[in-house]
Amino acid sequence: MNYKNKNLSLLLLIFLSFSLSAQDDEAFFIKEIYTTILKEGKCYEWLTHLSENVGGRLAGSPNAENAVNYTYSLMSNMDMDTVWKQACTVPVWERGDKEEVNIKWWEDGLMMIKELNALSLGNTIGTGRKAIKAEIIEVFGLDTLDKMGPEKLEGKIVFFNRPMDPSQIRTFNAYGGAVDQRVFGASRAAKHGALAVLVRSMTLRQDDNPHTGVSVYTDGVKKIPALAISTNDANFISDLIKKGIKVETKIKNNPRILPDAVSYNVIGEIKGSEFPEEIILVGGHLDSWDVGGGAHDDGAGCVHSLEVINALNKLNYRPKRTIRCVMFMNEENGLGGGLAYAEESNKNNEFHIAAIESDAGGFTPRGFSCTSEDEVFKKLFTNFKAFEDFLSPYDLSLKQGGGGADINPLKSQKGLLIGFRPDSQRYFDYHHTSIDRIDAVNPRELKMGAAAITSLVVLIDKYGL
Amino acid sequence: MNYKNKNLSLLLLIFLSFSLSAQDDEAFFIKEIYTTILKEGKCYEWLTHLSENVGGRLAGSPNAENAVNYTYSLMSNMDMDTVWKQACTVPVWERGDKEEVNIKWWEDGLMMIKELNALSLGNTIGTGRKAIKAEIIEVFGLDTLDKMGPEKLEGKIVFFNRPMDPSQIRTFNAYGGAVDQRVFGASRAAKHGALAVLVRSMTLRQDDNPHTGVSVYTDGVKKIPALAISTNDANFISDLIKKGIKVETKIKNNPRILPDAVSYNVIGEIKGSEFPEEIILVGGHLDSWDVGGGAHDDGAGCVHSLEVINALNKLNYRPKRTIRCVMFMNEENGLGGGLAYAEESNKNNEFHIAAIESDAGGFTPRGFSCTSEDEVFKKLFTNFKAFEDFLSPYDLSLKQGGGGADINPLKSQKGLLIGFRPDSQRYFDYHHTSIDRIDAVNPRELKMGAAAITSLVVLIDKYGL
Repeated sequence: MNYKNKNLSLLLLIFLSFSLSAQDDEAFFIKEIYTTILKEGKCYEWLTHLSENVGGRLAGSPNAENAVNYTYSLMSNMDMDTVWKQACTVPVWERGDKEEVNIKWWEDGLMMIKELNALSLGNTIGTGRKAIKAEIIEVFGLDTLDKMGPEKLEGKIVFFNRPMDPSQIRTFNAYGGAVDQRVFGASRAAKHGALAVLVRSMTLRQDDNPHTGVSVYTDGVKKIPALAISTNDANFISDLIKKGIKVETKIKNNPRILPDAVSYNVIGEIKGSEFPEEIILVGGHLDSWDVGGGAHDDGAGCVHSLEVINALNKLNYRPKRTIRCVMFMNEENGLGGGLAYAEESNKNNEFHIAAIESDAGGFTPRGFSCTSEDEVFKKLFTNFKAFEDFLSPYDLSLKQGGGGADINPLKSQKGLLIGFRPDSQRYFDYHHTSIDRIDAVNPRELKMGAAAITSLVVLIDKYGL
Repeated sequence: MNYKNKNLSLLLLIFLSFSLSAQDDEAFFIKEIYTTILKEGKCYEWLTHLSENVGGRLAGSPNAENAVNYTYSLMSNMDMDTVWKQACTVPVWERGDKEEVNIKWWEDGLMMIKELNALSLGNTIGTGRKAIKAEIIEVFGLDTLDKMGPEKLEGKIVFFNRPMDPSQIRTFNAYGGAVDQRVFGASRAAKHGALAVLVRSMTLRQDDNPHTGVSVYTDGVKKIPALAISTNDANFISDLIKKGIKVETKIKNNPRILPDAVSYNVIGEIKGSEFPEEIILVGGHLDSWDVGGGAHDDGAGCVHSLEVINALNKLNYRPKRTIRCVMFMNEENGLGGGLAYAEESNKNNEFHIAAIESDAGGFTPRGFSCTSEDEVFKKLFTNFKAFEDFLSPYDLSLKQGGGGADINPLKSQKGLLIGFRPDSQRYFDYHHTSIDRIDAVNPRELKMGAAAITSLVVLIDKYGL
């Protein structure tokens, strides 16, 4: 560049400086957020500790207590005005010994036995010391059971085998279309005299990993054992049954339901300088299933939320509104933390202008989806959509619908409930399995998520809704 | 649903049928494409074969020949009008024995030696039987070398260590900002008397995997060996140098440059029923680097393209325009296939209305980016953008810029050159390494890519540009 051009450029630069609008400031600040987190973010390190050193952390377990202490200590070392633990009641369920499940059948005059990859479903009872043995009846939906009745189900083991629909683009829709079998299958089968249930794992992947998850017994119906089996095993059994072969299964497991316990949400807060009564919450759930490391579900959401505070600290950002970072306890099997949080918040007449939950994994961010009470939604959503201009350069879009299990109890406060929406294609490969570990998480994807959430927090803080 | 409602629904359905527009037809057909590929797509199976059974397939190698035969046979079994092999000239380079690279230094009176994870860069020469030993000089860019001159570089081994910039949102930009060191580093260093070069691997990940890739010698400059080392090793050396420690390296490798050979593009075509002279090309490159399985780079692009034809066959879709599926040879180290294809196409006065290349991995699709000659671009891009209405429900956006190495030689035909744009966050974790294998590919992400490309092909076929 020669001298003359240099001068021209300088003039141009001065001109541009004068015409810098708030838009440019925001775009610049969001770029700063991304740069800070991509270069210096700590979320992957924290997640490594949470997933590998603390490990699986079902509410009420010693690991969950360790997770509470670890994140409390992380928050205490950040520049926040207050950090506290909030007590909540959680159920206590222990898996017990490794599940023993096999199937037995006759083929070409030979007796065949095959061990299955199985996991007891959360909150279910076990077979006790004596195994349950019975014939398997394959079904594809809850409704079928009522039609079949005790005549066909009494003394049998019901095998729910409706797969998640692979043609769904968003895998959460495929999950939603199949998970009733896992959640309600046991009691529906027990009503008709079944002895236990096996459920095809909730995943779109064809492999050997069983996926656990919550199961709920209906009051007044006999509790029976319920276990998930891997998709490979599910197909194997189904193929035998298609050939007209009678399949017998033997199940032995001994999970225990213990008395409820006290556990904690971990909360940290930066008080707003102008509108301290308007709270922007960012959170994930600290508990996970006991198998694996709860890396994507929901260690990722926890470290995303912690990274928001860390990045704001690094950028010396002092918010106008109150920013609260919440590690919810017991999302997986009871929602004790989310309910306790909302109860206390309502008691204190708090107002959450926006609550953002990250509970869909540490994958590349695609955007956010949000919801609210009908009467205020239209206005809030319109304002919210305006932020898309700032976020679309990062391939983020803002959609209607969704929120998060832990923040939904805040609905009555009539703010915006926002779900962080990462790419969903791989989520159910790991969900509730022993392979939901740190090596399933890509550091850059995780950091991009934290940067996306931090950017949204700053936009809401600056402009309100 | 009661009888009365059923009748009402029927009336509504009839009413809706009459008001179905072309828009609805398209939306429905795109949904069908996704469902077909997500449920019955073969691309993951084909990629498993290409990556694991055929393996790494550098142009001119026996594996590349196997890949030609495999994809020729796949295409021959599809419903296409013509399938053929198109000859092209390719350079032949062989890696030879495993590279031996170590560093030696003195610390606290002790001599220390550490083996490095290294890979010769493509098309480079070796040290021969006798190793090269010399002091390492760390530099961060090509320009620095000219300032340092022979005084500081003569007899030394230059270590290029400028990392890819992690703050770039699109990792290809970070790659573009660092790869000059790998491509041109050897000759630039040789000009000043350096004996060899080591280059920090082109990746944003911190690990032990060296990344190979093409290096180009400048005519008239002495050829010297050039190797990539892992990012962990690069940081290790850099830390020693920062402490003022003199680091000596020993390099032994013996790649060979053999005479050029003949290889092939593999091409299949469905003749258009109305506008056969308007060609829509969809392709990837069949060759890969010799290490690993070339799963993401670019087996994914090949099986994406094959799946387009497979899906159209399954859906009994007869195109109006000619659809051509091309497996290009020798993208990685010479572009022999892309150049031969364009040359013959131009000789035959062909017109590619659109050429779509998939060469950015088998990750979740984000959209497409396109380019063309200036004079026609504005009109074409405006028409092209109209397709976004159909594609945005699948989270796909259409952007300006980009294309693909193999299709760029078609630019003079003044059609649209389109690059398939999957999520880029993980691409350089695997790029040109021994871990670019099938287990780095998620089947659903791969299929989503094929569905996205098929949808775009159908839209261009139906509406033109």
